[in-house]
Amino acid sequence: MENKEKQIWDLIIIGGGPAGITAGIFAGRQKLKTLLITKEFGGQINLKAVHIENYPGFSEISGKELISRFVEHLKKYPVEILLEEVIKIRKENDIFNVITEKNNLFFSRTAILAVGAKPRTLEIKGEKEFLGKGVSYCPVCDGYFFKEKQVAIIGGGNAGFESALFLSQIAKKIYILDFSETPKADKELQERVESTKKVEFIGGVKIKEIQGENFVKALIYEEIKTNREFILPVSGVFIHAGTVPQTYLVEGLVDFNEKKEIKINPETLQTKTPGLFAAGDCTEGKYKQIVIAAAQGAKAALSAFEFLKAKQ
Amino acid sequence: MENKEKQIWDLIIIGGGPAGITAGIFAGRQKLKTLLITKEFGGQINLKAVHIENYPGFSEISGKELISRFVEHLKKYPVEILLEEVIKIRKENDIFNVITEKNNLFFSRTAILAVGAKPRTLEIKGEKEFLGKGVSYCPVCDGYFFKEKQVAIIGGGNAGFESALFLSQIAKKIYILDFSETPKADKELQERVESTKKVEFIGGVKIKEIQGENFVKALIYEEIKTNREFILPVSGVFIHAGTVPQTYLVEGLVDFNEKKEIKINPETLQTKTPGLFAAGDCTEGKYKQIVIAAAQGAKAALSAFEFLKAKQ
Repeated sequence: MENKEKQIWDLIIIGGGPAGITAGIFAGRQKLKTLLITKEFGGQINLKAVHIENYPGFSEISGKELISRFVEHLKKYPVEILLEEVIKIRKENDIFNVITEKNNLFFSRTAILAVGAKPRTLEIKGEKEFLGKGVSYCPVCDGYFFKEKQVAIIGGGNAGFESALFLSQIAKKIYILDFSETPKADKELQERVESTKKVEFIGGVKIKEIQGENFVKALIYEEIKTNREFILPVSGVFIHAGTVPQTYLVEGLVDFNEKKEIKINPETLQTKTPGLFAAGDCTEGKYKQIVIAAAQGAKAALSAFEFLKAKQ
Repeated sequence: MENKEKQIWDLIIIGGGPAGITAGIFAGRQKLKTLLITKEFGGQINLKAVHIENYPGFSEISGKELISRFVEHLKKYPVEILLEEVIKIRKENDIFNVITEKNNLFFSRTAILAVGAKPRTLEIKGEKEFLGKGVSYCPVCDGYFFKEKQVAIIGGGNAGFESALFLSQIAKKIYILDFSETPKADKELQERVESTKKVEFIGGVKIKEIQGENFVKALIYEEIKTNREFILPVSGVFIHAGTVPQTYLVEGLVDFNEKKEIKINPETLQTKTPGLFAAGDCTEGKYKQIVIAAAQGAKAALSAFEFLKAKQ
């Protein structure tokens, strides 16, 4: 393990979504010697299929533009940025050891986990097999391939409906399938999707299998009430079945709830390990929204500052 | 009491600062029939002496501009706005009754209190007497009167130092006085104030009296360690001794902490009264920041939506 200089940071922030960037802004304002490590900036916002309309102050803005405004804001402050992936965090003698994929080792008095969440897989037949061959978790990345085709979206929440809105500009016909009888997306979003006249919601179903040859050809689902199976001919399947927190790298240092989200003190955002804080979608908390993640980043940085001050 | 039409709203939001406006945005997105009542938009941001640099996405923006961007965002949604002051909220048969200064009465199934906070007074001799005659709680409103004069600022937190930064462009010499031995403002802000070379911090003191004739002439303070009294010749006294929550209008419906801040469930932001939520600086919560207030507004609106859905 390489260890060029044993510099000890005040704070290492892990993650570059709204929570991590905001933590950096607030740590910078408090003059903490701060290192932010992230593979890329943006987090889940990079996967968003439509413009962002729920971050107050911006009526409508692309995810890319919002993140670049966040990063520009961050760069006003002397926060060091490293574009690498963190693979492990340990605590030894009151100092956090943060190890990256490239085997770099960093030391810090406090740390903030803002590692976000990744798409949840369905774990059904055909899902892995046809990944990149019709199966996708990212309409922005793969949507244009389905011009004038029929596609299915799995998941009737906001992500699924946003995906439908985006794909309605490209695909001929879109089905949204969900376990629930009724959609869970925001009312306004539902109305906008409906007005495209290209989208059909199929509720109360269980997804069984994705079929195809070289490429996806159909989706098999079961109507829960009747147990009948249906074949839906589609060329693409976009999966928006929620997210799983990216929390593997801290097992032992934190407690998780039943959804594998990091448990935190709601006031200080501290985990069960003193000096280790968590913010954003990797934490417990019912509502996952950009402004809520950002606020948690701010809180976590201010808490880290107070933690360090109390130790002096 | 006038009551032209007994319309029942889904949600009434009381307050037009970042928390109230964001609650309106999120309620609008959920298609709740929403009425937002506020005397004016902006809340405490209207009193801010310097540009805002702590709302992620805007590296630097005037308070006025930020609020107008928030209001523009709100107006995308069909939320009704009424510019009046609310003077009382009651709950009768599961319906909230909201009464304004003009004696208008509104009914709603849920309500969000986002009534913010107002400057705390020192309650010392001369403070009331010289209000508007050298005593001020708002440097932006009154600062230009003190061109090339000596002024005192009471309070060594962020508000006091922001005030000093603003007044350094106008006044000749600025004293910041605080009970604490050391300033509590953000480190970066302290450095910027120091670099003006016009500001002197006097810590560990108790403010005794403001003296003058037609106008302020001096401030009397006591050094806590020695009990010695000092006279500081100044033409202006700007008071930034914290805030008091504007919570009088809901006594009975909510519980308060020892600071008279509204107690809330940290997850749902519901007060002790079902259907009544609170967000922003009127609530308990250690860190008062714009992005945190906005996030609370979002959470409160989503909670109100769920409350209504569960009642259906």
